[in-house]
Amino acid sequence: MQQQDEFPVSRRALLKLIGASAGGAAMYEAMVEMGYAATSDFAGPIKLSGAPKGASVLILGAGLAGMIAAYELRKAGYKVQILEYNDRPGGRNWSLYGGDTYKEMGGVTQHVQFDKGLYFNPGPWRIPYHHQGILHYCQMLNVAMESFVMVNNSAYVHSTRAFDGKPKRYREVASDYDGYTAELLAKATSQDKLDGLIDEDEKDGLLQMLRRWGALDKNYEYRKSDAVSTFRGYDVPPGGGLNSISVDSEPLPRKELFNSSLWLARFLPKIWEFQGSLFQPVGGMGMIGKAFGKLLNGVIKYDCKVTSIHQDEKGVTATYIDTKKGGAPKTAHADWCVCTIPATVLSQIPMNVGAPMRNAIDSLSYIPAAKVGLQFKRRFWEEDDAIYGGNSYTDQPIFNISYPSHGFFSKGPAVLLGAYAFQSTSTYSFESLSAQDMIKAALEQGAKIHPQYNKEFQNGVAVAWHRVPWTLGCSGGWTDEGRTKHYDNMCAVDNRIVLAGEHCSRLPAWQEGAVLSSLDAIKRLHQRAVTA
Amino acid sequence: MQQQDEFPVSRRALLKLIGASAGGAAMYEAMVEMGYAATSDFAGPIKLSGAPKGASVLILGAGLAGMIAAYELRKAGYKVQILEYNDRPGGRNWSLYGGDTYKEMGGVTQHVQFDKGLYFNPGPWRIPYHHQGILHYCQMLNVAMESFVMVNNSAYVHSTRAFDGKPKRYREVASDYDGYTAELLAKATSQDKLDGLIDEDEKDGLLQMLRRWGALDKNYEYRKSDAVSTFRGYDVPPGGGLNSISVDSEPLPRKELFNSSLWLARFLPKIWEFQGSLFQPVGGMGMIGKAFGKLLNGVIKYDCKVTSIHQDEKGVTATYIDTKKGGAPKTAHADWCVCTIPATVLSQIPMNVGAPMRNAIDSLSYIPAAKVGLQFKRRFWEEDDAIYGGNSYTDQPIFNISYPSHGFFSKGPAVLLGAYAFQSTSTYSFESLSAQDMIKAALEQGAKIHPQYNKEFQNGVAVAWHRVPWTLGCSGGWTDEGRTKHYDNMCAVDNRIVLAGEHCSRLPAWQEGAVLSSLDAIKRLHQRAVTA
Repeated sequence: MQQQDEFPVSRRALLKLIGASAGGAAMYEAMVEMGYAATSDFAGPIKLSGAPKGASVLILGAGLAGMIAAYELRKAGYKVQILEYNDRPGGRNWSLYGGDTYKEMGGVTQHVQFDKGLYFNPGPWRIPYHHQGILHYCQMLNVAMESFVMVNNSAYVHSTRAFDGKPKRYREVASDYDGYTAELLAKATSQDKLDGLIDEDEKDGLLQMLRRWGALDKNYEYRKSDAVSTFRGYDVPPGGGLNSISVDSEPLPRKELFNSSLWLARFLPKIWEFQGSLFQPVGGMGMIGKAFGKLLNGVIKYDCKVTSIHQDEKGVTATYIDTKKGGAPKTAHADWCVCTIPATVLSQIPMNVGAPMRNAIDSLSYIPAAKVGLQFKRRFWEEDDAIYGGNSYTDQPIFNISYPSHGFFSKGPAVLLGAYAFQSTSTYSFESLSAQDMIKAALEQGAKIHPQYNKEFQNGVAVAWHRVPWTLGCSGGWTDEGRTKHYDNMCAVDNRIVLAGEHCSRLPAWQEGAVLSSLDAIKRLHQRAVTA
Repeated sequence: MQQQDEFPVSRRALLKLIGASAGGAAMYEAMVEMGYAATSDFAGPIKLSGAPKGASVLILGAGLAGMIAAYELRKAGYKVQILEYNDRPGGRNWSLYGGDTYKEMGGVTQHVQFDKGLYFNPGPWRIPYHHQGILHYCQMLNVAMESFVMVNNSAYVHSTRAFDGKPKRYREVASDYDGYTAELLAKATSQDKLDGLIDEDEKDGLLQMLRRWGALDKNYEYRKSDAVSTFRGYDVPPGGGLNSISVDSEPLPRKELFNSSLWLARFLPKIWEFQGSLFQPVGGMGMIGKAFGKLLNGVIKYDCKVTSIHQDEKGVTATYIDTKKGGAPKTAHADWCVCTIPATVLSQIPMNVGAPMRNAIDSLSYIPAAKVGLQFKRRFWEEDDAIYGGNSYTDQPIFNISYPSHGFFSKGPAVLLGAYAFQSTSTYSFESLSAQDMIKAALEQGAKIHPQYNKEFQNGVAVAWHRVPWTLGCSGGWTDEGRTKHYDNMCAVDNRIVLAGEHCSRLPAWQEGAVLSSLDAIKRLHQRAVTA
């Protein structure tokens, strides 16, 4: 997948070539056969070289986009410097550990009280296998990776409006949906109700598949049986020795299931970014930012709040305030600038770019999101519920409970993700709670799924992204219209300035978006610099 | 899940109680709500005590069943001794490392040439989350566990009889099956073809679910689109910066898909034992047996081939030959005996038990299975195909290719499971090949999915379980008739002898079967001993 050319050819460029060539179809076939069937838009390690003598680049923001820009441009021969608002590298690549403090907009400060070794990722928390860009940098930085458990058949799905508000296991709901779907389609097929929809010679294959997939009986019915229990779980699983016969479980009533919103459980794991395998860095997502910061030792200036950005024929000047030491505003200057400041913040900073980029920045609103990390005395989800990693879902504002994919079976306290309110109708009201109330709400809502919450809770931390001072939102919330009108203007180089970050990508909210955006931005800035 | 009572109450016993009580339904509801919804038939750590003074137990076989029996009975106060055929503990719990040798029936010896740190599990290789018995002992033994990746959406499914024999990604096949299934059922529903099969007030919920689950368009069609690509993958995924628009992928033709056998891909991950989360011990499955062997230091006598078992009013005597030192047959004697020797081997050993147990032993045939471990120069499945762990499936005799769930992203050689031929029509012919030919066949068949095989292969090892001298088969192959007629007789205590092992369970081939069988057997043997 990773080519070693000076200028690696992207799948995109290759497809264009193929499209333009006579033997295109055959070439594409060959690509697919060679395992090149589209996994990533990452074209392999970028290899820029030949920076104009003495050329310099000022980078605003030490998140992933900014640090990748600094690393790759430095390698190409540029003098680079990063100004960063926080006192740490990483930006939204961020883990909170015991002893950390987090001060949100408005001044409320949380002191994280987690036990040693426990952490919580307020921002990104999982990396799908096809995010080859971020995975490349993890390898380069020797960031150790471990499996992230996304789908756990033992986890819960919960609706306040179905099954008397009682949580169901994912395996039950998924199996019953599949089973009833298979039953209906198999009966319709075998009763010749699908005439006009399906050919005669498709029926056998379909019926055979449906019977196995849905665990249907010989009459194409989905009903209590050993076969069905093999999918949805048993009331008593098979055992050993005498008196070990299994007791089958009873499927959920079809009508109640179909009219519940629990189909979410079937939908989420199918999404491209949630498909396995997935990974997380050992010790917290923030390990990537930390490692990158170390690599860029001396390049990053922390505690710098940028107050204006000015470009002219000679270069770019950023004015900034030292937020720790205070004092008079200072300036940093370079020939070129990569600006990764989120559009929410950037829209408040004077910057002399053209109307197209300015309008793009001003038009982009950010998606709200909030996360709560909760420490409990013990892993009751493992010990009582046999849930090891993975996610439970509910229609309450907390939406998502995620169990740690690490430290399985360990004794003592552990931290889980107690809420991930994200871009749903209830997100706004949840996110507007104070940190303390958000933790309280997460406990109340979570206790409907795990009654153990009440007894086992120790401490928590809540991050509402619209109150994070340096992003004022979770991620770029592009609408289709906004994309059409503004996206290219957001990404285009404006004289000496180019923007980068997840908001300048088609993978908003994902670290991969920041990576791919940065690589594309610096490639174009470099081209401009060498031809300037 | 694990109760701390002296005699832990099993789910089974609790259900019996509930069934016999007036408020049964309510009690069961309460259990379910408390998270006790059936996950395992393991009732928690067994706590036997009060062995009759000086009582002794002879255990035959140092596999998991035998070692658990020895450990728990020793704790209860019995004098215990194990005779083991091999020169190591574990039995089928077994990993092969570089430097190991394996001598099969007939005398052919393989010298394992894997690089340092690489291994292959000829026997069990994954532990589902609900196998709480084996997981309990792993915790007790401090065996470190890591996630086992079962479902990988990026892995391949392959049929020699479909799509010109070209492998497809799991995500494509699964998404297209779901999509076409949803399309057919949604159309039939919306066109009122399901009259008599579904009520009017179920239709809305069903259609809403099918549309999202199947990524259908507004006409309920499953066709090339961004929504569909979000499930099955893109020709070019969305990127960052300019020129980053994704290119959608084309679904496989419906008829060809339905008439292929690739629905297997949808079926396998739904099976109870293959559902996530799953685990593997760090460093190989054999780490469990090794740790247990260390714990039972001095209890296990290795290299002992049992040649006869005799019981009388006073006790049980086993006659055995030291296979390393030779010499005259020796004897071991105890009051009671737990015999875990596989039925295949035991049927050839004189043992004075009643006709019911003898017939049970003689009647049980064992399932054939063969596995091949292959070392390659590099992880081409990761580097070229973006497959990290998980399984590819084919209709060729090798059936299953499994990629390591550990050491992701590492450079240098790695070992994958190149074949797991198991109880299919082609297993017999594959398993009858010599080890050398089996490796050759695994390479030829695997190359149809991974052409890189030819260039990257370094060395391999093959284990055909019917040629493993101490099992002569993979696991107990119970038929329904056999179970009805013989199973209880196999498990019942015969005077002073009780049998244990996966063949004495309803989870054949799984380590959990051996664990639960052993716990049940020693509980009953202990009861007999204290009342004798």
